[in-house]
Amino acid sequence: MLLRVIGIGPGSPRQITLEAVDAIGATDVFFLLDKGSRTSELTALREKFLTEYGAPGHRVVAIADPPRDRRPDDYEAEVRRWHAARVDAVRAAVSEHLRPGETGGFLVWGDPALYDSTLRILDQLAARDDVSVEVEVIAGVTSASALTAAHGIVAHGIGEPILTTTGRRLSATPAGADANQIVMLDSDLAFRETAAPDDLVYWGAYLGTEHEILVSGRVADVTAEIEEKRARARERLGWIMDIYLLQKAR
Amino acid sequence: MLLRVIGIGPGSPRQITLEAVDAIGATDVFFLLDKGSRTSELTALREKFLTEYGAPGHRVVAIADPPRDRRPDDYEAEVRRWHAARVDAVRAAVSEHLRPGETGGFLVWGDPALYDSTLRILDQLAARDDVSVEVEVIAGVTSASALTAAHGIVAHGIGEPILTTTGRRLSATPAGADANQIVMLDSDLAFRETAAPDDLVYWGAYLGTEHEILVSGRVADVTAEIEEKRARARERLGWIMDIYLLQKAR
Ligand SMILES: C[S@@+](CC[C@H](N)C(=O)[O-])C[C@H]1O[C@@H](n2cnc3c(N)ncnc32)[C@H](O)[C@@H]1O
Ligand SMILES: C[S@@+](CC[C@H](N)C(=O)[O-])C[C@H]1O[C@@H](n2cnc3c(N)ncnc32)[C@H](O)[C@@H]1O
Repeated sequence: MLLRVIGIGPGSPRQITLEAVDAIGATDVFFLLDKGSRTSELTALREKFLTEYGAPGHRVVAIADPPRDRRPDDYEAEVRRWHAARVDAVRAAVSEHLRPGETGGFLVWGDPALYDSTLRILDQLAARDDVSVEVEVIAGVTSASALTAAHGIVAHGIGEPILTTTGRRLSATPAGADANQIVMLDSDLAFRETAAPDDLVYWGAYLGTEHEILVSGRVADVTAEIEEKRARARERLGWIMDIYLLQKAR
Repeated sequence: MLLRVIGIGPGSPRQITLEAVDAIGATDVFFLLDKGSRTSELTALREKFLTEYGAPGHRVVAIADPPRDRRPDDYEAEVRRWHAARVDAVRAAVSEHLRPGETGGFLVWGDPALYDSTLRILDQLAARDDVSVEVEVIAGVTSASALTAAHGIVAHGIGEPILTTTGRRLSATPAGADANQIVMLDSDLAFRETAAPDDLVYWGAYLGTEHEILVSGRVADVTAEIEEKRARARERLGWIMDIYLLQKAR
């Protein structure tokens, strides 16, 4: 069976590609993996995409997330266990709802290649001998691109490398790879522990949505403002989705 | 005046966003910076976007590239000198062709934040006291996302960082930042000097075009195939545009 993993961009209704629009229109059943998510604006956006671009008669199946230990002793082992449970859930949903010859689809925020587990789940599904799965991936605009576009900047100095990393890993970046860092999945503004006062930070939250917030400047100058705006928005909306670029002072 | 830098994706006519389509339709004059380029399929794609999505009566102005030393002693100084000459050329073209109240546009491959000089040129233009410039950036799908989508893979192991770098800088990547590397602007398959035989390489050329070529596998197994396909395609078409992901053997 054909399963499509469709990158739908980072949050704006116009930051989706024509290819993703085509793919949504050619899909029979959409499987929604993160039913439990509280990011209601994003859920609404996904519904909007399905309503506007889905073929008449397309079906939507929510797959509940198995429970997950958010503060495990062994982070990677817990992620792997949780992924295996998700594979079981996806397999059950797909065999129940997808008829022979039909195509299934998974909508993924941003680009499917970046910090998203959908492809790993489908790879594990494909690895089981009893199912024959073909996976097609539709690239999307990443939240990193949305961030740099919103700030109107290039991500790096001329010819320099960029490291894309997570809040969890930020402090492990080796010297020499830290000139330009895009930091995602950071629940705690980890740059406060790693950055020098003169480094530059370009921060963005809720990019592409009506709640978009941007702050940029020297770390020493803007950290308090980011902390404050982040805390206030998070309290008001009940969720936060943020990302930043950290550039070492030259 | 308002100048828009519009990411149009890496090469496929469907890998453009709705936002970029909107932006093309709202622009009066398009300035084409790389007239001298020999990548005729890509030039044709850009023309197709302007024909299909441009407003009636939009104008197109080609800005010839100033001459450039491709093998300078001081690479960064030469790039800076060349950028300054381009700023002069853009300034002349913009003041000649953009009438008061009109909007100018620059189409950029992939995403404007990644290894593209358009934003740097406009920043330098904006820094001159005699012009008042507002710059708007439209994010695009990067060639890195096109690569991973074409191979159907996630760019990294669970939670790991990714370094995006150039062929020129690949050998300078510090240990600890080399688990997953996206390599662009590499005219010489630099991974042959840096990779171990068991590392994995996911290579792609002409992504999104009718000439797309994909090769992946252990470095020891596929390097010869990449060398051969790359040389053959380059000779046949007269140009090459390729990118790869290098993953360290675990
Ligand atoms: C699970 S990852 C998914 C990334 C996604 N696949 C992409 O390509 O952007 C979620 C992280 O992406 C970033 N992110 C995604 N969408 C965002 C948005 N609209 N605004 C700010 N950050 C966003 C945040 O750092 C968040 O923690
Ligand atoms: C000047 S950089 C521009 C990158 C662009 N801004 C982006 O976001 O992908 C050009 C490099 O991008 C990569 N590239 C761009 N388009 C590509 C395509 N269609 N297929 C393969 N590589 C591509 C190649 O590594 C090439 O050397």
